[in-house]
Amino acid sequence: MKIVALAGGVGGAKLAHGLAQILPPEDLTVIVNTGDDFEHLGLTICPDLDTVCYTLAGLANPETGWGRQNETWNVISNIERLGGPNWFRLGDQDLATHLERTRRLKEGKSLSQVTREFCEAWGIKQTVTPMSDSPVRTIVDTDEGELAFQEYFVHRHCEPRVKGFRFDGIEGAQPTVGADEALEAADAVVICPSNPWVSIDPILRVLALTPSPLPEGEGHKFDKPVVAVSPIIGGKTVKGPAAKMYAELGIEPSALAVAEHYRNLLTGFVLDSQDRQLSDKFKKGKILVTDTLMNSSADRARLAKDVLHFVGSLL
Amino acid sequence: MKIVALAGGVGGAKLAHGLAQILPPEDLTVIVNTGDDFEHLGLTICPDLDTVCYTLAGLANPETGWGRQNETWNVISNIERLGGPNWFRLGDQDLATHLERTRRLKEGKSLSQVTREFCEAWGIKQTVTPMSDSPVRTIVDTDEGELAFQEYFVHRHCEPRVKGFRFDGIEGAQPTVGADEALEAADAVVICPSNPWVSIDPILRVLALTPSPLPEGEGHKFDKPVVAVSPIIGGKTVKGPAAKMYAELGIEPSALAVAEHYRNLLTGFVLDSQDRQLSDKFKKGKILVTDTLMNSSADRARLAKDVLHFVGSLL
Repeated sequence: MKIVALAGGVGGAKLAHGLAQILPPEDLTVIVNTGDDFEHLGLTICPDLDTVCYTLAGLANPETGWGRQNETWNVISNIERLGGPNWFRLGDQDLATHLERTRRLKEGKSLSQVTREFCEAWGIKQTVTPMSDSPVRTIVDTDEGELAFQEYFVHRHCEPRVKGFRFDGIEGAQPTVGADEALEAADAVVICPSNPWVSIDPILRVLALTPSPLPEGEGHKFDKPVVAVSPIIGGKTVKGPAAKMYAELGIEPSALAVAEHYRNLLTGFVLDSQDRQLSDKFKKGKILVTDTLMNSSADRARLAKDVLHFVGSLL
Repeated sequence: MKIVALAGGVGGAKLAHGLAQILPPEDLTVIVNTGDDFEHLGLTICPDLDTVCYTLAGLANPETGWGRQNETWNVISNIERLGGPNWFRLGDQDLATHLERTRRLKEGKSLSQVTREFCEAWGIKQTVTPMSDSPVRTIVDTDEGELAFQEYFVHRHCEPRVKGFRFDGIEGAQPTVGADEALEAADAVVICPSNPWVSIDPILRVLALTPSPLPEGEGHKFDKPVVAVSPIIGGKTVKGPAAKMYAELGIEPSALAVAEHYRNLLTGFVLDSQDRQLSDKFKKGKILVTDTLMNSSADRARLAKDVLHFVGSLL
């Protein structure tokens, strides 16, 4: 069974790692959000792409779920001493990725090519591809005006109230060849438990799977099963601002709200055992209720197995 | 007594540090070669400027004389793992300097402004200025063709035979305001024991002190004492390729050759006790024979004291 997983950062990377433990490498392609990418200190930084790759390569910091394990901070602490910007914490090992990626991009390579080369160097056998080789930049509209995503997310700790989102450059952004081919060959699509607004929506838009939010009753009829795993458990997000975003946009944060978000695109939906009572409120598609928290590598594999079994039942 | 010191990397930085131990901070300006600067990994790297600043700030690696003390190499070893360029060994602390400098240059600041800011952050009270804010790039003409300086110096370990030098961008390069003002206010100029061909010549050219080599009998008549300290002792350079360059250019490497190199510019010349027998061969200017090897911080101060005493006798 060939699977395409759509992923943002930490939650997406964890399920991608679970799927990688179950599927043969050639049967898994992870298409990663690049809307969080930004330019900082002259470097092109791709947080979601790096989190997915570090996680699949076994290089990720097990405590944070992002960044590198056994990381050191000698560069940033010296930038700090010089009075330079220190709000985005760049570890030394992580910086090597950004420096070398930026160098290769400046040589004229595409982001997907550089990602392929890095995956090879890190021993990642699955296919990981950015959603697009053209820059897409998520802009968060807030009560303090528009903020570039990392400005909102890291620098301002998600404090400003969210009013909406736009994705600079998304109109012209084509999916990468790897994303297109994988989608064509896939038996099913798994939407990882990532932020629907800022991690998954940009991917769906680029892949032309659906504009979100869709007017009721509209939406691309994708001809393969699409299963989403809720990033919201008991009304809260495991990590990140998704629940806060729903609340600020006037929607009660819940797994139900996530399923509503994806509307007609979903064939199936996976929600946590804690939210079992919501399962009879779903009108469309099939439901899988299971433990979705991924605290360990074994949790990831178990959830991936459950999800794949569920997907299999929908084929 | 206000002193302007002209300096390249290690040898220049050591004497500058000696002078800094003797003179009040406001009486010392170090004008530093930028011909060795280059762009690498998208960063503007200024090796001589950094060596002078790290040395004055007490941050330099005492074993190498360049780079940072207690340095770590986590970025470069991860760039290496990705298959990126590793021939120029960038330490983690050192990288912070290049990243933050490049960021500020891109913001539109001049190299002299950034250097001033870094000196303040590092607690350097003397004035350190690049020779120019315009890029000058030393190109080494060799038996294998023209090589950018760091390509010759670091990547090729000075192996190709030298045929000559040129300094890209030097025609349009004006001295920095700080260099001009310091030269105007100075009582004397000290040429540090740096490489005459690639460290001092570019500075002299930018300051319009002399084109080198001068036709016999020509040269700018500078109206203040100029004293040079020989970087060649017993026919060998303490560090770097100066002696090798002299030999390849058909000139016997010696303190004598260094003095000849600077020709009419010199009022006085300092050579090492080992070369005492050469002292009666000097036709022009006064000679100071003293111990010029600077193995310790105390050596630097002692040589600086000797040089300043000598300079005082020439006023």
